[in-house]
Amino acid sequence: MSDLVTIPARRGKAAFVAAGQTVRVVNTHGEQVVDTWAFNRHDLTEFMSMEHSRSGMRRLIPRIGDTLLTNHRRPILTMTEDTSGGIHDTLMAACDRYRYEGLGVVGHHDNCTDNLAQGLAELGLVPAETPSPLNLFMNIPWTGQGELSFEPPVSTPGSHVSLRAEMDLVIAFSACPQDILPINGRTCRPTEAHFAIMA
Amino acid sequence: MSDLVTIPARRGKAAFVAAGQTVRVVNTHGEQVVDTWAFNRHDLTEFMSMEHSRSGMRRLIPRIGDTLLTNHRRPILTMTEDTSGGIHDTLMAACDRYRYEGLGVVGHHDNCTDNLAQGLAELGLVPAETPSPLNLFMNIPWTGQGELSFEPPVSTPGSHVSLRAEMDLVIAFSACPQDILPINGRTCRPTEAHFAIMA
Repeated sequence: MSDLVTIPARRGKAAFVAAGQTVRVVNTHGEQVVDTWAFNRHDLTEFMSMEHSRSGMRRLIPRIGDTLLTNHRRPILTMTEDTSGGIHDTLMAACDRYRYEGLGVVGHHDNCTDNLAQGLAELGLVPAETPSPLNLFMNIPWTGQGELSFEPPVSTPGSHVSLRAEMDLVIAFSACPQDILPINGRTCRPTEAHFAIMA
Repeated sequence: MSDLVTIPARRGKAAFVAAGQTVRVVNTHGEQVVDTWAFNRHDLTEFMSMEHSRSGMRRLIPRIGDTLLTNHRRPILTMTEDTSGGIHDTLMAACDRYRYEGLGVVGHHDNCTDNLAQGLAELGLVPAETPSPLNLFMNIPWTGQGELSFEPPVSTPGSHVSLRAEMDLVIAFSACPQDILPINGRTCRPTEAHFAIMA
Protein backbone atom coordinates (compact mmCIF):
# COMPACT_ATOMS: atom_id res chain seq x y z
CA MET A 1 0.00 0.00 0.00
CA SER A 2 1.22 3.49 -0.76
CA ASP A 3 1.72 6.03 2.01
CA LEU A 4 -1.14 7.09 4.19
CA VAL A 5 -2.24 10.68 3.76
CA THR A 6 -3.77 12.51 6.70
CA ILE A 7 -7.17 14.16 6.53
CA PRO A 8 -6.55 16.56 9.41
CA ALA A 9 -9.19 16.78 12.12
CA ARG A 10 -11.86 19.35 11.18
CA ARG A 11 -10.25 19.97 7.76
CA GLY A 12 -10.36 18.91 4.11
CA LYS A 13 -7.91 17.11 1.83
CA ALA A 14 -8.11 16.32 -1.86
CA ALA A 15 -6.07 14.26 -4.32
CA PHE A 16 -5.94 13.22 -7.96
CA VAL A 17 -6.80 9.58 -8.65
CA ALA A 18 -6.32 7.82 -11.97
CA ALA A 19 -8.92 5.47 -13.44
CA GLY A 20 -8.28 1.99 -12.06
CA GLN A 21 -6.59 3.13 -8.87
CA THR A 22 -8.24 2.39 -5.53
CA VAL A 23 -8.64 4.82 -2.65
CA ARG A 24 -8.66 3.27 0.81
CA VAL A 25 -10.29 5.49 3.43
CA VAL A 26 -9.31 4.55 6.97
CA ASN A 27 -11.37 5.49 10.01
CA THR A 28 -8.24 5.77 12.13
CA HIS A 29 -9.91 6.32 15.48
CA GLY A 30 -13.16 4.62 14.54
CA GLU A 31 -15.83 7.29 15.07
CA GLN A 32 -14.98 9.96 12.51
CA VAL A 33 -17.39 10.78 9.71
CA VAL A 34 -15.58 11.47 6.41
CA ASP A 35 -17.57 13.49 3.88
CA THR A 36 -16.45 12.35 0.43
CA TRP A 37 -16.79 13.95 -3.00
CA ALA A 38 -15.47 12.97 -6.42
CA PHE A 39 -15.23 15.10 -9.56
CA ASN A 40 -14.34 14.22 -13.13
CA ARG A 41 -10.74 15.37 -13.31
CA HIS A 42 -11.27 16.83 -16.77
CA ASP A 43 -14.61 18.54 -16.09
CA LEU A 44 -15.47 19.61 -12.55
CA THR A 45 -19.11 20.17 -13.54
CA GLU A 46 -19.44 16.36 -13.66
CA PHE A 47 -19.30 14.91 -10.16
CA MET A 48 -20.46 12.05 -7.97
CA SER A 49 -24.15 12.63 -7.23
CA MET A 50 -26.02 10.94 -4.40
CA GLU A 51 -29.41 11.45 -6.08
CA HIS A 52 -28.20 9.86 -9.31
CA SER A 53 -26.35 7.10 -7.44
CA ARG A 54 -29.41 6.09 -5.40
CA SER A 55 -31.40 5.83 -8.62
CA GLY A 56 -28.77 3.56 -10.17
CA MET A 57 -28.02 1.43 -7.08
CA ARG A 58 -31.64 1.34 -5.92
CA ARG A 59 -30.26 1.50 -2.41
CA LEU A 60 -29.91 4.13 0.31
CA ILE A 61 -26.36 3.05 1.21
CA PRO A 62 -23.76 1.65 -1.20
CA ARG A 63 -22.55 -1.87 -0.50
CA ILE A 64 -19.50 -3.77 -1.76
CA GLY A 65 -19.93 -4.05 -5.53
CA ASP A 66 -22.13 -0.97 -5.85
CA THR A 67 -21.09 1.81 -8.21
CA LEU A 68 -21.64 5.48 -7.49
CA LEU A 69 -22.70 7.59 -10.48
CA THR A 70 -22.06 11.13 -11.61
CA ASN A 71 -24.72 13.70 -12.45
CA HIS A 72 -24.24 12.40 -16.02
CA ARG A 73 -25.05 8.89 -14.72
CA ARG A 74 -21.59 7.56 -15.48
CA PRO A 75 -19.70 5.28 -13.07
CA ILE A 76 -17.18 7.22 -10.99
CA LEU A 77 -16.41 5.09 -7.89
CA THR A 78 -17.09 1.45 -7.01
CA MET A 79 -17.06 0.24 -3.42
CA THR A 80 -14.76 -2.80 -3.41
CA GLU A 81 -14.14 -3.31 0.33
CA ASP A 82 -15.82 -2.28 3.56
CA THR A 83 -14.64 -3.44 6.98
CA SER A 84 -16.50 -0.67 8.83
CA GLY A 85 -19.85 -2.35 9.34
CA GLY A 86 -21.48 -1.03 6.19
CA ILE A 87 -23.14 2.03 7.70
CA HIS A 88 -22.73 5.20 5.64
CA ASP A 89 -25.03 8.02 4.60
CA THR A 90 -26.22 9.43 1.28
CA LEU A 91 -29.09 11.54 2.65
CA MET A 92 -27.60 14.49 4.48
CA ALA A 93 -26.06 17.68 3.14
CA ALA A 94 -22.52 18.58 4.10
CA CYS A 95 -22.49 20.77 7.19
CA ASP A 96 -22.04 24.45 6.45
CA ARG A 97 -21.96 27.82 8.19
CA TYR A 98 -25.76 27.89 8.18
CA ARG A 99 -25.91 24.56 10.01
CA TYR A 100 -23.79 25.85 12.87
CA GLU A 101 -25.64 29.17 13.00
CA GLY A 102 -28.81 27.12 13.39
CA LEU A 103 -27.19 25.15 16.20
CA GLY A 104 -26.45 28.40 18.03
CA VAL A 105 -22.77 28.83 17.20
CA VAL A 106 -21.69 32.49 17.16
CA GLY A 107 -18.81 33.31 14.81
CA HIS A 108 -16.78 30.89 12.72
CA HIS A 109 -17.15 27.12 12.95
CA ASP A 110 -15.21 24.74 10.71
CA ASN A 111 -17.57 23.00 8.30
CA CYS A 112 -17.45 20.39 5.55
CA THR A 113 -18.63 22.74 2.80
CA ASP A 114 -15.72 25.12 3.41
CA ASN A 115 -13.41 22.09 3.78
CA LEU A 116 -14.35 20.87 0.30
CA ALA A 117 -13.37 24.25 -1.12
CA GLN A 118 -10.17 24.35 0.96
CA GLY A 119 -9.11 20.84 -0.05
CA LEU A 120 -9.67 21.55 -3.73
CA ALA A 121 -8.00 24.97 -3.47
CA GLU A 122 -4.80 23.22 -2.39
CA LEU A 123 -4.87 21.57 -5.83
CA GLY A 124 -5.65 24.87 -7.54
CA LEU A 125 -9.28 23.90 -8.17
CA VAL A 126 -12.62 25.55 -7.48
CA PRO A 127 -15.81 23.46 -7.28
CA ALA A 128 -18.70 24.75 -9.38
CA GLU A 129 -21.13 23.73 -6.65
CA THR A 130 -21.22 21.70 -3.44
CA PRO A 131 -22.68 18.31 -4.34
CA SER A 132 -24.41 16.28 -1.65
CA PRO A 133 -21.55 14.14 -0.24
CA LEU A 134 -21.11 10.43 0.36
CA ASN A 135 -20.83 10.54 4.15
CA LEU A 136 -18.58 7.60 4.95
CA PHE A 137 -19.10 6.04 8.40
CA MET A 138 -22.04 8.38 9.11
CA ASN A 139 -24.95 6.70 10.87
CA ILE A 140 -28.38 8.01 9.88
CA PRO A 141 -30.90 5.24 10.55
CA TRP A 142 -34.35 5.34 8.98
CA THR A 143 -37.63 3.85 10.14
CA GLY A 144 -40.42 2.26 8.14
CA GLN A 145 -42.25 5.60 8.42
CA GLY A 146 -39.23 7.47 7.03
CA GLU A 147 -38.09 9.08 10.27
CA LEU A 148 -34.37 9.83 10.38
CA SER A 149 -32.00 10.34 13.31
CA PHE A 150 -28.37 11.35 13.81
CA GLU A 151 -26.45 8.61 15.64
CA PRO A 152 -22.80 7.83 16.49
CA PRO A 153 -20.85 5.72 13.98
CA VAL A 154 -20.73 1.94 14.32
CA SER A 155 -17.28 1.68 12.68
CA THR A 156 -14.23 0.54 14.65
CA PRO A 157 -10.69 2.00 14.83
CA GLY A 158 -8.66 1.21 11.73
CA SER A 159 -11.62 -0.06 9.75
CA HIS A 160 -11.76 1.08 6.15
CA VAL A 161 -13.63 1.42 2.89
CA SER A 162 -12.03 0.95 -0.54
CA LEU A 163 -13.30 2.83 -3.58
CA ARG A 164 -12.10 2.07 -7.09
CA ALA A 165 -11.90 5.01 -9.50
CA GLU A 166 -13.90 4.38 -12.68
CA MET A 167 -12.54 7.52 -14.38
CA ASP A 168 -9.70 9.96 -13.80
CA LEU A 169 -10.99 11.99 -10.92
CA VAL A 170 -10.33 14.37 -8.08
CA ILE A 171 -11.38 13.00 -4.71
CA ALA A 172 -12.02 15.31 -1.79
CA PHE A 173 -12.56 14.48 1.86
CA SER A 174 -13.57 16.39 4.95
CA ALA A 175 -13.04 15.07 8.46
CA CYS A 176 -16.38 16.40 9.67
CA PRO A 177 -15.94 19.05 12.41
CA GLN A 178 -19.38 18.47 13.93
CA ASP A 179 -18.83 18.69 17.71
CA ILE A 180 -22.33 19.61 18.85
CA LEU A 181 -24.32 16.57 17.70
CA PRO A 182 -22.82 13.09 18.47
CA ILE A 183 -22.42 12.22 14.79
CA ASN A 184 -18.65 11.78 15.31
CA GLY A 185 -19.12 9.74 18.48
CA ARG A 186 -20.65 10.44 21.85
CA THR A 187 -17.61 12.37 23.04
CA CYS A 188 -18.18 14.94 20.23
CA ARG A 189 -14.43 15.15 19.55
CA PRO A 190 -13.65 15.16 15.81
CA THR A 191 -10.40 13.41 14.90
CA GLU A 192 -8.19 13.00 11.88
CA ALA A 193 -8.65 10.14 9.40
CA HIS A 194 -6.41 8.81 6.65
CA PHE A 195 -6.47 7.61 3.07
CA ALA A 196 -4.12 5.89 0.67
CA ILE A 197 -4.14 5.65 -3.11
CA MET A 198 -3.25 2.20 -4.38
CA ALA A 199 -2.32 1.12 -7.89
CA MET B 1 -59.11 29.77 -5.67
CA SER B 2 -57.34 31.54 -8.48
CA ASP B 3 -57.22 30.07 -11.94
CA LEU B 4 -55.68 26.70 -12.55
CA VAL B 5 -52.49 26.75 -14.61
CA THR B 6 -51.62 23.74 -16.74
CA ILE B 7 -48.33 21.91 -16.42
CA PRO B 8 -48.46 20.37 -19.90
CA ALA B 9 -47.81 16.64 -20.21
CA ARG B 10 -44.06 15.98 -20.55
CA ARG B 11 -43.22 19.68 -20.11
CA GLY B 12 -42.24 22.27 -17.51
CA LYS B 13 -43.96 25.37 -16.13
CA ALA B 14 -42.72 27.98 -13.67
CA ALA B 15 -44.26 30.90 -11.81
CA PHE B 16 -43.43 33.65 -9.33
CA VAL B 17 -44.90 33.21 -5.85
CA ALA B 18 -44.87 35.86 -3.13
CA ALA B 19 -44.08 35.05 0.48
CA GLY B 20 -47.29 33.98 2.22
CA GLN B 21 -49.03 32.76 -0.92
CA THR B 22 -49.91 29.09 -1.23
CA VAL B 23 -49.36 26.92 -4.28
CA ARG B 24 -51.82 24.07 -4.74
CA VAL B 25 -50.51 21.30 -6.99
CA VAL B 26 -53.27 19.11 -8.38
CA ASN B 27 -52.68 15.58 -9.63
CA THR B 28 -55.42 15.99 -12.22
CA HIS B 29 -55.46 12.42 -13.53
CA GLY B 30 -54.05 10.87 -10.35
CA GLU B 31 -50.91 9.11 -11.48
CA GLN B 32 -48.63 11.89 -12.68
CA VAL B 33 -45.35 12.59 -10.91
CA VAL B 34 -44.64 16.33 -10.66
CA ASP B 35 -40.98 17.25 -10.12
CA THR B 36 -40.92 20.46 -8.11
CA TRP B 37 -38.20 23.05 -7.52
CA ALA B 38 -38.18 26.39 -5.72
CA PHE B 39 -35.62 29.18 -5.95
CA ASN B 40 -35.18 32.37 -3.97
CA ARG B 41 -36.68 34.94 -6.33
CA HIS B 42 -33.89 37.41 -5.58
CA ASP B 43 -30.97 34.95 -5.73
CA LEU B 44 -31.29 31.83 -7.86
CA THR B 45 -28.19 30.33 -6.23
CA GLU B 46 -30.34 29.80 -3.13
CA PHE B 47 -32.87 27.03 -3.76
CA MET B 48 -34.91 24.29 -2.11
CA SER B 49 -32.51 21.46 -1.31
CA MET B 50 -33.62 17.91 -0.55
CA GLU B 51 -30.39 17.09 1.34
CA HIS B 52 -30.79 20.15 3.57
CA SER B 53 -34.53 19.58 3.98
CA ARG B 54 -34.10 15.95 5.10
CA SER B 55 -31.60 17.12 7.71
CA GLY B 56 -34.04 19.71 9.02
CA MET B 57 -37.22 17.60 8.84
CA ARG B 58 -35.49 14.40 9.95
CA ARG B 59 -37.80 12.61 7.55
CA LEU B 60 -37.52 11.05 4.09
CA ILE B 61 -40.86 12.50 2.95
CA PRO B 62 -42.36 15.83 4.03
CA ARG B 63 -45.68 15.67 5.84
CA ILE B 64 -48.29 18.33 6.58
CA GLY B 65 -46.55 20.92 8.77
CA ASP B 66 -43.03 20.11 7.53
CA THR B 67 -40.92 22.90 6.08
CA LEU B 68 -38.54 22.43 3.17
CA LEU B 69 -35.22 24.28 3.47
CA THR B 70 -32.90 25.94 1.02
CA ASN B 71 -29.21 25.20 0.61
CA HIS B 72 -28.77 28.08 3.10
CA ARG B 73 -31.04 26.16 5.52
CA ARG B 74 -33.78 28.80 5.37
CA PRO B 75 -37.47 27.90 5.15
CA ILE B 76 -38.75 28.13 1.58
CA LEU B 77 -41.95 26.01 1.40
CA THR B 78 -44.20 24.48 4.05
CA MET B 79 -46.55 21.62 3.24
CA THR B 80 -49.95 22.71 4.54
CA GLU B 81 -52.30 20.21 2.87
CA ASP B 82 -51.98 16.79 1.29
CA THR B 83 -54.96 14.81 0.05
CA SER B 84 -52.83 12.52 -2.14
CA GLY B 85 -51.98 9.81 0.36
CA GLY B 86 -48.72 11.34 1.55
CA ILE B 87 -46.38 9.47 -0.79
CA HIS B 88 -43.73 11.67 -2.40
CA ASP B 89 -40.02 11.33 -3.06
CA THR B 90 -36.93 13.28 -2.04
CA LEU B 91 -34.34 10.64 -3.03
CA MET B 92 -34.21 10.53 -6.82
CA ALA B 93 -32.59 12.90 -9.27
CA ALA B 94 -34.68 14.52 -11.96
CA CYS B 95 -34.65 12.43 -15.11
CA ASP B 96 -32.28 13.70 -17.78
CA ARG B 97 -30.96 12.80 -21.22
CA TYR B 98 -28.47 10.42 -19.60
CA ARG B 99 -31.29 8.55 -17.87
CA TYR B 100 -33.06 7.86 -21.14
CA GLU B 101 -29.84 6.97 -22.93
CA GLY B 102 -29.28 4.41 -20.17
CA LEU B 103 -32.79 3.08 -20.72
CA GLY B 104 -32.01 2.53 -24.41
CA VAL B 105 -33.70 5.55 -25.94
CA VAL B 106 -32.06 6.68 -29.18
CA GLY B 107 -32.35 10.39 -29.92
CA HIS B 108 -34.27 13.00 -27.97
CA HIS B 109 -36.54 12.17 -25.04
CA ASP B 110 -38.29 14.83 -23.00
CA ASN B 111 -36.85 14.96 -19.49
CA CYS B 112 -37.41 16.85 -16.24
CA THR B 113 -33.96 18.45 -16.20
CA ASP B 114 -34.57 20.12 -19.56
CA ASN B 115 -38.12 20.95 -18.44
CA LEU B 116 -36.78 22.88 -15.44
CA ALA B 117 -34.64 24.97 -17.78
CA GLN B 118 -37.53 25.41 -20.23
CA GLY B 119 -39.99 26.45 -17.53
CA LEU B 120 -37.59 29.01 -16.08
CA ALA B 121 -36.60 30.25 -19.53
CA GLU B 122 -40.23 31.25 -20.13
CA LEU B 123 -39.73 33.67 -17.20
CA GLY B 124 -36.39 34.85 -18.54
CA LEU B 125 -34.41 32.92 -15.93
CA VAL B 126 -31.54 30.45 -16.07
CA PRO B 127 -30.92 28.03 -13.17
CA ALA B 128 -27.33 27.96 -11.89
CA GLU B 129 -27.62 24.20 -11.37
CA THR B 130 -30.26 21.47 -11.31
CA PRO B 131 -31.09 20.83 -7.65
CA SER B 132 -32.47 17.45 -6.65
CA PRO B 133 -36.24 17.95 -6.92
CA LEU B 134 -39.15 17.34 -4.58
CA ASN B 135 -40.89 14.65 -6.59
CA LEU B 136 -44.54 15.11 -5.71
CA PHE B 137 -46.70 11.97 -5.94
CA MET B 138 -43.65 9.82 -6.79
CA ASN B 139 -43.65 6.44 -5.06
CA ILE B 140 -40.19 5.18 -4.11
CA PRO B 141 -40.64 2.73 -1.21
CA TRP B 142 -37.68 1.75 0.97
CA THR B 143 -37.05 -1.40 2.97
CA GLY B 144 -35.39 -1.82 6.35
CA GLN B 145 -32.25 -2.80 4.46
CA GLY B 146 -32.38 0.39 2.39
CA GLU B 147 -33.48 -1.17 -0.89
CA LEU B 148 -35.43 1.19 -3.14
CA SER B 149 -37.88 0.53 -5.95
CA PHE B 150 -39.79 2.57 -8.54
CA GLU B 151 -43.55 2.07 -8.15
CA PRO B 152 -46.72 3.64 -9.55
CA PRO B 153 -48.22 6.56 -7.59
CA VAL B 154 -50.86 5.94 -4.92
CA SER B 155 -52.50 9.35 -5.46
CA THR B 156 -56.03 9.66 -6.86
CA PRO B 157 -57.45 11.92 -9.59
CA GLY B 158 -57.89 15.49 -8.38
CA SER B 159 -55.93 14.99 -5.17
CA HIS B 160 -53.57 17.80 -4.28
CA VAL B 161 -50.74 19.11 -2.16
CA SER B 162 -50.57 22.69 -0.87
CA LEU B 163 -47.24 24.42 -0.29
CA ARG B 164 -46.98 27.80 1.44
CA ALA B 165 -44.18 30.09 0.27
CA GLU B 166 -41.93 31.18 3.13
CA MET B 167 -40.05 33.69 0.95
CA ASP B 168 -40.56 35.35 -2.42
CA LEU B 169 -39.70 32.55 -4.79
CA VAL B 170 -39.84 31.07 -8.24
CA ILE B 171 -41.52 27.69 -8.34
CA ALA B 172 -40.90 25.31 -11.23
CA PHE B 173 -42.68 22.09 -12.11
CA SER B 174 -42.15 19.31 -14.59
CA ALA B 175 -44.86 16.81 -15.48
CA CYS B 176 -42.40 13.92 -15.63
CA PRO B 177 -42.19 12.41 -19.15
CA GLN B 178 -41.03 9.00 -17.93
CA ASP B 179 -42.88 6.49 -20.14
CA ILE B 180 -40.56 3.49 -19.86
CA LEU B 181 -40.74 2.76 -16.13
CA PRO B 182 -44.23 2.73 -14.50
CA ILE B 183 -43.44 5.69 -12.25
CA ASN B 184 -46.35 7.64 -13.82
CA GLY B 185 -48.70 4.68 -13.55
CA ARG B 186 -48.75 1.21 -15.03
CA THR B 187 -49.98 2.48 -18.40
CA CYS B 188 -46.77 4.55 -18.76
CA ARG B 189 -48.75 7.48 -20.21
CA PRO B 190 -47.60 10.81 -18.79
CA THR B 191 -50.39 13.38 -18.45
CA GLU B 192 -50.75 17.05 -17.64
CA ALA B 193 -51.19 18.31 -14.09
CA HIS B 194 -52.28 21.69 -12.74
CA PHE B 195 -51.45 24.24 -10.10
CA ALA B 196 -52.99 27.36 -8.64
CA ILE B 197 -51.50 30.21 -6.66
CA MET B 198 -53.73 31.34 -3.82
CA ALA B 199 -53.48 34.49 -1.69
